[in-house]
Amino acid sequence: MKFGFVNGQNMALLTDMYELTMAQSYFNAGMNDIAVFDFFARRTKNRSYLLSAGLEQVLYYLQNIRFCDEHIAYLKESGRFSDDFLSYLKKFRFSGDLYAVDEGEILFENEPFITVEAPLIEAQIVETFIINTMQLSILVATKAMRCRSVAQDTALVDFGLRRAHGTDAGMKAARCAYIGGFAGTSNVLAAKTFDIPAFGTMAHSFILAHESEEKAFSHFLKTYPENSILLVDTFDTINGVRHAVEAVKRAGLRNFRGIRLDSGDIETLAKKSRQILDSAGFEKAMIFVSGGLNEYKIKELMQKRAPIDGWGVGTELVVSADTPYLDCAYKLVEYRGRPKMKLSPEKVTLPSRKQIFRKYENGIIAEDKIALIDEKIDGSPLMKRYIHRGRIVMDPPSLEAIRKKAQESFDSLPPKVREIEKSRMPAPDLGPGLSRIMKKLQADIEKSL
Amino acid sequence: MKFGFVNGQNMALLTDMYELTMAQSYFNAGMNDIAVFDFFARRTKNRSYLLSAGLEQVLYYLQNIRFCDEHIAYLKESGRFSDDFLSYLKKFRFSGDLYAVDEGEILFENEPFITVEAPLIEAQIVETFIINTMQLSILVATKAMRCRSVAQDTALVDFGLRRAHGTDAGMKAARCAYIGGFAGTSNVLAAKTFDIPAFGTMAHSFILAHESEEKAFSHFLKTYPENSILLVDTFDTINGVRHAVEAVKRAGLRNFRGIRLDSGDIETLAKKSRQILDSAGFEKAMIFVSGGLNEYKIKELMQKRAPIDGWGVGTELVVSADTPYLDCAYKLVEYRGRPKMKLSPEKVTLPSRKQIFRKYENGIIAEDKIALIDEKIDGSPLMKRYIHRGRIVMDPPSLEAIRKKAQESFDSLPPKVREIEKSRMPAPDLGPGLSRIMKKLQADIEKSL
Repeated sequence: MKFGFVNGQNMALLTDMYELTMAQSYFNAGMNDIAVFDFFARRTKNRSYLLSAGLEQVLYYLQNIRFCDEHIAYLKESGRFSDDFLSYLKKFRFSGDLYAVDEGEILFENEPFITVEAPLIEAQIVETFIINTMQLSILVATKAMRCRSVAQDTALVDFGLRRAHGTDAGMKAARCAYIGGFAGTSNVLAAKTFDIPAFGTMAHSFILAHESEEKAFSHFLKTYPENSILLVDTFDTINGVRHAVEAVKRAGLRNFRGIRLDSGDIETLAKKSRQILDSAGFEKAMIFVSGGLNEYKIKELMQKRAPIDGWGVGTELVVSADTPYLDCAYKLVEYRGRPKMKLSPEKVTLPSRKQIFRKYENGIIAEDKIALIDEKIDGSPLMKRYIHRGRIVMDPPSLEAIRKKAQESFDSLPPKVREIEKSRMPAPDLGPGLSRIMKKLQADIEKSL
Repeated sequence: MKFGFVNGQNMALLTDMYELTMAQSYFNAGMNDIAVFDFFARRTKNRSYLLSAGLEQVLYYLQNIRFCDEHIAYLKESGRFSDDFLSYLKKFRFSGDLYAVDEGEILFENEPFITVEAPLIEAQIVETFIINTMQLSILVATKAMRCRSVAQDTALVDFGLRRAHGTDAGMKAARCAYIGGFAGTSNVLAAKTFDIPAFGTMAHSFILAHESEEKAFSHFLKTYPENSILLVDTFDTINGVRHAVEAVKRAGLRNFRGIRLDSGDIETLAKKSRQILDSAGFEKAMIFVSGGLNEYKIKELMQKRAPIDGWGVGTELVVSADTPYLDCAYKLVEYRGRPKMKLSPEKVTLPSRKQIFRKYENGIIAEDKIALIDEKIDGSPLMKRYIHRGRIVMDPPSLEAIRKKAQESFDSLPPKVREIEKSRMPAPDLGPGLSRIMKKLQADIEKSL
């Protein structure tokens, strides 16, 4: 397992203060029976489906979370915590169970990605990290899959590290883009950490550092004769393509890997570039495009039959620009065996331990049902136990396997749901047992008000 | 200096592959003379000013960047790099100069936050990390300042860790929110790392874990009699406020810290809650609000005179939701003493080593001029040398000093520019020397095409 920057030792304090103040209050009252929390997303603007990702980092975190002496000393200094509670924290381990859908599975509105079943204090303290990790991973994996779904047989590469929100986001985005079907990343550390292909050639600064574009190209081809993608838009794109062709010929090379367009009217420039490359005998030279791309622009250019072979997608992928956050939550649904439900306006939760049952027809998803864990429902259960009594009991699949699963999940979507234009995110049915519990709970709560 | 997760040792490979492929090409040709790169932002939708932040992390990175054996082994395995070049990387240090505006300074369109003057290869390799760190920091600091600017004398707290894009973003966001005028953060590790106040009380799960809201409140007050902010909207907000008041009275407490509203029609609920609290004799009890807040909602509620004392701003702050990325760049502007300029459509850069000169009238910014470093221009120069020959030569100010400077910078803005509704981001004038160079360069380039 490869975990990037996640470090169990240091991450324990990466939590919200209220998790710890609540924990102390529970501790004082001896309230530490088994609680069940769900992590799920509500309906999301601009998304018809959500691709699960981030679980591996959560598994590692839960198995390794420790409060070290330095953490304890800091909390003691704050004056808010008793010695008894701090002694408890010092021995803190996650001892519960974690149920989750596999990474690479596609989910819809209100379907839990993760269910934590653990002593209340443990389940509470891990909330912040779980949301922090899962939200970003789902956002980027989903955005990547949307790009993949319109790019037909062309290649996609993650160019987003520089515009990702910090270092950890750059790492997670590279991993999740790969899950969503990208061919690799420009991020060297992510390529190393996750063992995925690294891509990269030259920037405008390389051209500018030389006395002329021609000299820059010739020089680059000397270092990478077989593997140069020459960036042609620094001054004038069409001239740039001609300079690139001349440089390749001058170097006596038979193969020309290709060019990159990073600005301007891409459709026109790609078509003209293709002509120039072809008439120079470089039919196999790739046209690679970058610069402010997203799934909508890729789709448009594909529809216009722009002769593009590959795409570098950066900013809009890694910040999920049209939907930079999910309406997601980690909610208590059961404590001491009693179902729990919140009634705040527009924030109703589904109580009790649940399972998602999925029915297929001819390989296409026909119906999802969210039901109580012990309801007898037709369909394949999607949630599996990954952690039991604090130990990982099912090794997460390899990144390659997750990526393959993501493509299979996508292929099982009804055609309408695959579209990047907002069809409506399907709202799964609820099992009859779950519906009954919800009605009863709602009535009980309203009676008590 | 406190740096959060930034780790010089591990961050060297956190770069784009093309930085390394270009570097090897430069290395092979012996092209490693002094280059000058600027980091700046172009005009930004929804922002009238940008608050500088993130410099401290960049300083630490530049002083500590090293390629360790594991990095070198990975690059060697990739087959793209020669032993000579890898030997160079093994000894790689940043040996150049860094000029920057102070954190907490406000800048406008095209004004460089950072100028790197270093041997070409060094200046190139550090590009990705600089953009990654600066963009997020500027985004969050600016968003925080916008919230601060409409919140009058009420308190603002960063609640964003869970929705930040990964762990590093959660840390940087807490720091930058503090720079922008927030009182503190819910993020415990950030509070510890940056020595800023930590805030937090209770979540809905705390209420739900108990048999009733009343019992939950009573129980919490037992642990924190003087310091409880009770969350009142789990079932019915007004009932929740009444339960909170009863619980405080039942506990025999004289002081009541306050309540938190997290959903519903906040204006109406805050006004009703205030009445209930006041008539119970708790005139000093705070009303704290959270849930989907941003600067626009805070401004509206302040204008409606909703009796709110504090705000927990989360998601929209830490992902800078209305502007989740900046049109920013790190561009070569000079090499071997020769000015450099790119002509790609809408992406023109300002060539040469520059300085920003700012003129004030009665404490208010009257004019900014971007000029060549050696032009004689009226006004205070904003860029200072922080690193000389690879060593930090000016210690970055304390976080408190940066925060104070940010408020002073904001107070020096013309009133129109302070507004959160988009006034136009001022475009600074260019010095006459810089203008001349640009005209000449443009002519030269066009002639050569």
